[in-house]
Amino acid sequence: MSSKRYSIGLDFGTLSARAVIANVEDGSIVDCESVFFYPNAIITELGGRKLPSNYALQNPKDYIDALKFLLCDIIKKSGVEVSAIVGIGIDFTDCTVLPVDDKMTPLCMLEKYESEPHAYAKLWKHHADEKYASHVHSVASSFDKSLLSVTGGKMTSEFMIPKLYETYCEAPSVYADTYKFVCAGDFVASLLIGKKLIHSKAYSAKQHYKSNDYPSKEFFASIDSGFADVYEKKTLTALSSVEEKAGTLSAEWASLTGLSTAVAVAPPIIDAHSAIAASGINENSAVLALGTSAVFEAVTPSKKNVQGALAQSYESVAANLTTVEAGIAAMGDLFDWFIQNCLPGSYSDEAKRLGLNPHQYLRLLAKDQRIGEHGLIALDWWNGSRAITLDNELSGIITGLRLSTKPEDIYRALIESTVFELRRISDSFAKQGIISERIIATGGIVLKDPMLMQICADVLNKPVDCLESLYATALGSAIYGAVAAGEYQSVTEASQKMRRPIALTYYPIKENHDAYEKIYMQYLRLCEYFSNENNRINLH
Amino acid sequence: MSSKRYSIGLDFGTLSARAVIANVEDGSIVDCESVFFYPNAIITELGGRKLPSNYALQNPKDYIDALKFLLCDIIKKSGVEVSAIVGIGIDFTDCTVLPVDDKMTPLCMLEKYESEPHAYAKLWKHHADEKYASHVHSVASSFDKSLLSVTGGKMTSEFMIPKLYETYCEAPSVYADTYKFVCAGDFVASLLIGKKLIHSKAYSAKQHYKSNDYPSKEFFASIDSGFADVYEKKTLTALSSVEEKAGTLSAEWASLTGLSTAVAVAPPIIDAHSAIAASGINENSAVLALGTSAVFEAVTPSKKNVQGALAQSYESVAANLTTVEAGIAAMGDLFDWFIQNCLPGSYSDEAKRLGLNPHQYLRLLAKDQRIGEHGLIALDWWNGSRAITLDNELSGIITGLRLSTKPEDIYRALIESTVFELRRISDSFAKQGIISERIIATGGIVLKDPMLMQICADVLNKPVDCLESLYATALGSAIYGAVAAGEYQSVTEASQKMRRPIALTYYPIKENHDAYEKIYMQYLRLCEYFSNENNRINLH
Repeated sequence: MSSKRYSIGLDFGTLSARAVIANVEDGSIVDCESVFFYPNAIITELGGRKLPSNYALQNPKDYIDALKFLLCDIIKKSGVEVSAIVGIGIDFTDCTVLPVDDKMTPLCMLEKYESEPHAYAKLWKHHADEKYASHVHSVASSFDKSLLSVTGGKMTSEFMIPKLYETYCEAPSVYADTYKFVCAGDFVASLLIGKKLIHSKAYSAKQHYKSNDYPSKEFFASIDSGFADVYEKKTLTALSSVEEKAGTLSAEWASLTGLSTAVAVAPPIIDAHSAIAASGINENSAVLALGTSAVFEAVTPSKKNVQGALAQSYESVAANLTTVEAGIAAMGDLFDWFIQNCLPGSYSDEAKRLGLNPHQYLRLLAKDQRIGEHGLIALDWWNGSRAITLDNELSGIITGLRLSTKPEDIYRALIESTVFELRRISDSFAKQGIISERIIATGGIVLKDPMLMQICADVLNKPVDCLESLYATALGSAIYGAVAAGEYQSVTEASQKMRRPIALTYYPIKENHDAYEKIYMQYLRLCEYFSNENNRINLH
Repeated sequence: MSSKRYSIGLDFGTLSARAVIANVEDGSIVDCESVFFYPNAIITELGGRKLPSNYALQNPKDYIDALKFLLCDIIKKSGVEVSAIVGIGIDFTDCTVLPVDDKMTPLCMLEKYESEPHAYAKLWKHHADEKYASHVHSVASSFDKSLLSVTGGKMTSEFMIPKLYETYCEAPSVYADTYKFVCAGDFVASLLIGKKLIHSKAYSAKQHYKSNDYPSKEFFASIDSGFADVYEKKTLTALSSVEEKAGTLSAEWASLTGLSTAVAVAPPIIDAHSAIAASGINENSAVLALGTSAVFEAVTPSKKNVQGALAQSYESVAANLTTVEAGIAAMGDLFDWFIQNCLPGSYSDEAKRLGLNPHQYLRLLAKDQRIGEHGLIALDWWNGSRAITLDNELSGIITGLRLSTKPEDIYRALIESTVFELRRISDSFAKQGIISERIIATGGIVLKDPMLMQICADVLNKPVDCLESLYATALGSAIYGAVAAGEYQSVTEASQKMRRPIALTYYPIKENHDAYEKIYMQYLRLCEYFSNENNRINLH
């Protein structure tokens, strides 16, 4: 085959979606990019009612609009012949789930459910179902603890069962009218192949699928007798392997985009896992996917139960491999929270004068500080904990504040707090046999924030390789598109050919590591204290 | 005596000094006020060298300039006949101390010491001598623990001995060239009566004077053999009673101000104690003096040793009474820190648009929150602890932060943290027999911030009386001026006649108190944890 062939990678993030086109031979990305910000972002109000802050809902119409826009836009911008495009891959946040009727129409798009929160997509970070998660957790603990082994021993509000159980309890008519609750990634892929609902194996872990089986009907009955058949009746249970294609483009979407109906569509994968494919799947390197939130993830051929991992997904990335991941529930979100809620006007003005964005200006002020100079230690739980402690009710803490504390001191301490949490994950995985010699860092921030990357290397005490492409996640999806199109025999092979090179590597500096080690010990003590249920801050 | 007679009250605060003129019969204040901001404020740089942030030095030239300006200005503004002015009273922060030569010239005003930090006045909140305080504390603990009984069992950097010992160790030539280390209030009073150095009994507690005696030469020798004669040679030991006059105005100051040389000058008192006199000295009410920092203080005829009190001062306010006090090391300072370091530009802009200052705007946003709604608990130790824990190395903490946390949430939590600390003091005093049925609140903020005052009443569960005058502290000084002039037989009598009336009273609301009680219990748990030496955050 001598003529060039391409695969489109679609990356659906928390607030926007983007597309790239990659050459299937070497993964090189055509120099253009298409981005679509969800017009409804995260919904804060419905039918004139303000939603509580622990709600995180989206309007799936945004996903459909994103899909249309991105495919047409990237084809146009890239100048690639439509006939040269052979595959489409998709990644999406997980577990983001929505109810659809038997025509695959999201319930919130029906007039009767316009104002009903539970008819919308519940984003991965929807936490309003925490009390349902607690109930499901306690039922699982007494019923069969091993049910929770794929999610670090915990049932949290971010998984599928509590999200569905919340709808069952709070919006019975939505529940009754739901044909299937589908993962948002599955929804998008199913649209492309034309009204045939598929369910990717990638999303099975947060559905508590384990060792070739789902939780039993008896288990669901123990939660609530009326909820017994939730999986049997209300979800998709047949799993599509990520090594095979889900289908080909529907006539409708072919006509919309100008692509051929022969174009292969891959089963969707998890956005964070997409970065693993883009880095070249490798058991010796952990992958850091940094974005709104962050994920520390590693692949392993073993199937042991890792405590403190948010999820262990068998074959979510490639055949015979388990992906083990734990996360930082707020990373970009946390730094943005600081800019929006804590940055003095004088700082914004000075940043503007220097032609810098606020993040750049704060980094400029903070980067040359001696380690520990600011005297602060923070716990990064602004959005709960998605690692080790696994508790979405945990909240952020700053210690060491003085009248001399400056905004850049707090900003740097917040950055350090996220890296300390990554270290806690790395150490915990290593103790359980998942040892990473190097770190591969991916995400837009990786090439923008040298201070963060050096802190990573120093605190983790490992070389940190930064991926060349800012669009690693979208590229990862394109790799699955290439596999679906039959360009490679396996995902692993495709990944090793199409992966992006390392742009630069940060090495740990011994003196810095030693200085951080002392601070990290105090950080651990704080973590331990505040993770303890008895020391929890709870004013409600 | 039918013609009106007046007394001038001079109040030297942390960043400014002010004067009022009061009628000696009823304490009514002539409707004018004079304020002088110290041009050098708190010195941050000397001889081109930036001072560490734990330094808090002042230039005594500012005190002299303040004295000149305020006396001339208040006489002019008030329109009072100079012949009607019979006394001058002074209050000053404590322990603020400076070295002078035998001509009473501050050493920093000599050219050779212009760039020498230890030649300047060390402000009450100078904390750079913390390590010297630790050493002195451990010597006192093994030598004779009762030495520390007047300061709550602790020796901290805010007291006189560590400040002098720091100079002895770090600037031996300053120490050698010092004729006397004098309290800044004594310095100002001595200037007015003309080069005769006096030492007010009010300042003796933070000098560790107790039961009619100073720490012994043997004690100082145990600190350092060369330091043995520090009190004998380098400080003033004869004490002036606050019930008697210190002297009369010198010819020089009479000529500078137009006042008569018959004008009586009172021994200086502590600024926080001045508010006790202005409230009418009363054993059943504790006085809250709210300002840059805050003090919770009560008078008692007993002489027991109160644990966790920053200072117990015998006869600092009136004969036969002991003043027991503990403090909030940062109050106005803490709220200002927040405005300067954490207030987003959008908030400053919106406040400006509404014609409010940032504090008013934040109060507007925070005042109607349900108690606990913001989910935060803070420990107010931004400037260390001056109560119960008595440790200037402690630092501030905020817990409960979420991505939904707003600036007004943090602002309200900071306010609550200072009130919780006041409650901790009130409870501790009560357990030791110093029981206050009501609270009298004084300070500029008292009539400006209804939210703060209601929180005080709710958390302390006591009626909070707000003094009418914004200038209670300066009025308190004027009361001592009247006593010095022989207008009254005693300070207590003068205080009861000249005190200001109560402007309004805040009563505790049961429902609010109950809600705060649950939060306060969690606050106490945090205090206990972070006060423990082993859980201390220390990055240096």
